[in-house]
Amino acid sequence: MDVSPAKVQSDASEVGRPVHPGGFLAGEAGKSDHVKAGRIVDFPVSVVLPAGGTGERTGLQTPKQFCSFLGRPLISFTIQTFERVSWIQNIVVVVAKENMDMMMDIIQRFQHKKVQVIPGGSTRHRSICNGVMALGEEERSADDKPKVVIVHDAVRPFVEEDFLHKIAVAAKEQGAAGATRPLVSTVIATTSEGYLDHSLERAKYRASEMPQGFTYDVIYQAYQRCTESDLEFGTECLHLALQYCGTNAKLIEGPPTLWKVTYKRDLAAAESIIKEMLSQSTCLLTGESTPGVRSADVFQKAFGALDMLDVIPDLMGDNARYLLKAWNFIQVSFHSSCLSEVEDILVALDATNQALLHPPIVIWVHLKRTDEKSMALAESATIMNLASTAKLRNILLYGIEVHGSEDTDRWERSAPKVAEMASALIRDRNPALVGQLLQA
Amino acid sequence: MDVSPAKVQSDASEVGRPVHPGGFLAGEAGKSDHVKAGRIVDFPVSVVLPAGGTGERTGLQTPKQFCSFLGRPLISFTIQTFERVSWIQNIVVVVAKENMDMMMDIIQRFQHKKVQVIPGGSTRHRSICNGVMALGEEERSADDKPKVVIVHDAVRPFVEEDFLHKIAVAAKEQGAAGATRPLVSTVIATTSEGYLDHSLERAKYRASEMPQGFTYDVIYQAYQRCTESDLEFGTECLHLALQYCGTNAKLIEGPPTLWKVTYKRDLAAAESIIKEMLSQSTCLLTGESTPGVRSADVFQKAFGALDMLDVIPDLMGDNARYLLKAWNFIQVSFHSSCLSEVEDILVALDATNQALLHPPIVIWVHLKRTDEKSMALAESATIMNLASTAKLRNILLYGIEVHGSEDTDRWERSAPKVAEMASALIRDRNPALVGQLLQA
Repeated sequence: MDVSPAKVQSDASEVGRPVHPGGFLAGEAGKSDHVKAGRIVDFPVSVVLPAGGTGERTGLQTPKQFCSFLGRPLISFTIQTFERVSWIQNIVVVVAKENMDMMMDIIQRFQHKKVQVIPGGSTRHRSICNGVMALGEEERSADDKPKVVIVHDAVRPFVEEDFLHKIAVAAKEQGAAGATRPLVSTVIATTSEGYLDHSLERAKYRASEMPQGFTYDVIYQAYQRCTESDLEFGTECLHLALQYCGTNAKLIEGPPTLWKVTYKRDLAAAESIIKEMLSQSTCLLTGESTPGVRSADVFQKAFGALDMLDVIPDLMGDNARYLLKAWNFIQVSFHSSCLSEVEDILVALDATNQALLHPPIVIWVHLKRTDEKSMALAESATIMNLASTAKLRNILLYGIEVHGSEDTDRWERSAPKVAEMASALIRDRNPALVGQLLQA
Repeated sequence: MDVSPAKVQSDASEVGRPVHPGGFLAGEAGKSDHVKAGRIVDFPVSVVLPAGGTGERTGLQTPKQFCSFLGRPLISFTIQTFERVSWIQNIVVVVAKENMDMMMDIIQRFQHKKVQVIPGGSTRHRSICNGVMALGEEERSADDKPKVVIVHDAVRPFVEEDFLHKIAVAAKEQGAAGATRPLVSTVIATTSEGYLDHSLERAKYRASEMPQGFTYDVIYQAYQRCTESDLEFGTECLHLALQYCGTNAKLIEGPPTLWKVTYKRDLAAAESIIKEMLSQSTCLLTGESTPGVRSADVFQKAFGALDMLDVIPDLMGDNARYLLKAWNFIQVSFHSSCLSEVEDILVALDATNQALLHPPIVIWVHLKRTDEKSMALAESATIMNLASTAKLRNILLYGIEVHGSEDTDRWERSAPKVAEMASALIRDRNPALVGQLLQA
């Protein structure tokens, strides 16, 4: 089989990469450690990620695995999901020959590790087959061959480590394992004239989804023994394992987030999941002053809708860890000179390199006294300039101005509006509005 | 059968309803007339819309048909789709008893017509059956009984008139007809122990979707003859027509937009489709002055991304028709006193009642001379007040200020940014940011 792997230096320097790149759903925002007690897989596991699709069903020119969300292509999110799993040794991404360069560029740009890119075949089975063969190449030592191969789709970015664990363990025990989902629609058989022949009893059937796992031997033999017709017209790896190795796959029901980004609407759904996840970790920086600390209560009450709101005075000392945990920072200031506090956050974020993966949001909430109004134009220009520079580094900066903050009643009335606006900025993550100084 | 219809005055006065409420996908924004030549159906058609689902698969407390998009529940969008079709006589919405009041409230609030609300049964089939029986009640004259009944889902809001036409005609000819979609995933049969039994050959099967159409006689007889077990455990109307009336349904492949809002991610996808549709009809109001008219070229170039941008001086005379065609209005002004132009648009929009169905957007783009800066605070307060009032009427008002407009070069450099911001405001339709005077 002609496979020409174009390896990326998977042992590339760690410099410049976030310390905790974060898993995508559960793992992000420090909510869970990515190595859980009792969930270590003690055998070598590799991943084959076919990404050769042309995306014709989305109705877009760009194949959907290369469509960008918040500045990053979908396939990079999927790769991130696997590279964060400590027990996954390597990831073979199979792309159409014409997309090899673009794929290599994505790997380098987002500093992905453990990844090998190889050219795909003319069908899905041929591409997966290329990936499996690449894992078994002569140059590897016998010890280096994976015990289990997980096959996934580039366009299913939201698989969680727990579920991968289930698939890997079941595959090792049974030879093959696959994710399923209940059928959403009734499945019907049609006559050749386009009429209903019969409908299937929904309870007896499942949709076969990804990931699927196989022992290396089963998937290797299945592809060695299968026919040209299988490679040309088939779609189901579990079927090959059954037909050519006699292996009945263990089926495991997966969560709805396993769904495959297929249509244009799925791109919107994926973006909304990513944005929602990023909205869930906000850090409120109050400074040390009494009014600042007091503002925290008002914010916490008003921010009810946002899932997590950590309140800290600043990012000094131990609190620097929030730079790696939170995706949104709200700085409460009482002086316009305090834009220097915002500058500090931008510098600190830049140092962590968090913005490589997702755009963090920084919101400057300026509580102004009534007599400070005349400063508005200068501040407006300053924050716009800061925001333009930050945007180049993938950090989104916005400002919210609150007037008459010396009047406690008035400020308590404004707080829900500030929280609503901050929440809206965080949820939309709209780069066109950076640098604006909004009025609460 | 115990069916207690709670009829809404379906012949309610037309007063206060938009003249062209607009179909949802193709029909909106005046792109196509809703009665197309040769597409009239010359026999009576009624719709049964089961909406009894509890929405457990979305993981939300509100059943998904009642989840709101831009302030309006999903089921209202679905009803709108049917009520705009001239050849559809009436729509029977079947809801759980506990949701009857909420449903009646939705019908009244969004001034839906042709709608009858009846209580559902304990299963999908029992609910549809209730709907069909309600169509055949004694009080109706024989002429009033529908020839064809279309069964649809409340959670599939995007069906187009053309496709309904195909289903209705095929149902009349064949007795039954149903929408299908190709399978996205392979369907597999499982053993009782949770292992793969066999996989189905994807090409021979289809997913059965909605809408489905039946002659009244076929669907009525099918429900008369079927068993309690069918009513309790079945899900497929086409199956009943085949089994109890010997009617092989004609299967017609529908567009991907027919999909069923099932999971939480589908709500995001539906919202994005609605927002994208509303983004596609923008009206640029330039006034009569030379600089205003000249600005149109700059905008048109910069607005490239937005699908439609109609340029008119104002909404006077014949141009008033844009009030019913466009969902977004950008008013270019050269004097802050020109906020009166914005007020005129708000009053005119209010008179059309367009905002009943979707929130229209009005953006005031103020091209300021360099020496006008001192006015900023007064304008800021004025637009915030206008926006607060407009928001109560479901109209979203924003402002964008451009400085140094007397310098043609500078203005031409600013224009792309203005267009980018306007486009972002239009696409996000974010109510939290109304009244802001953004700086370009």
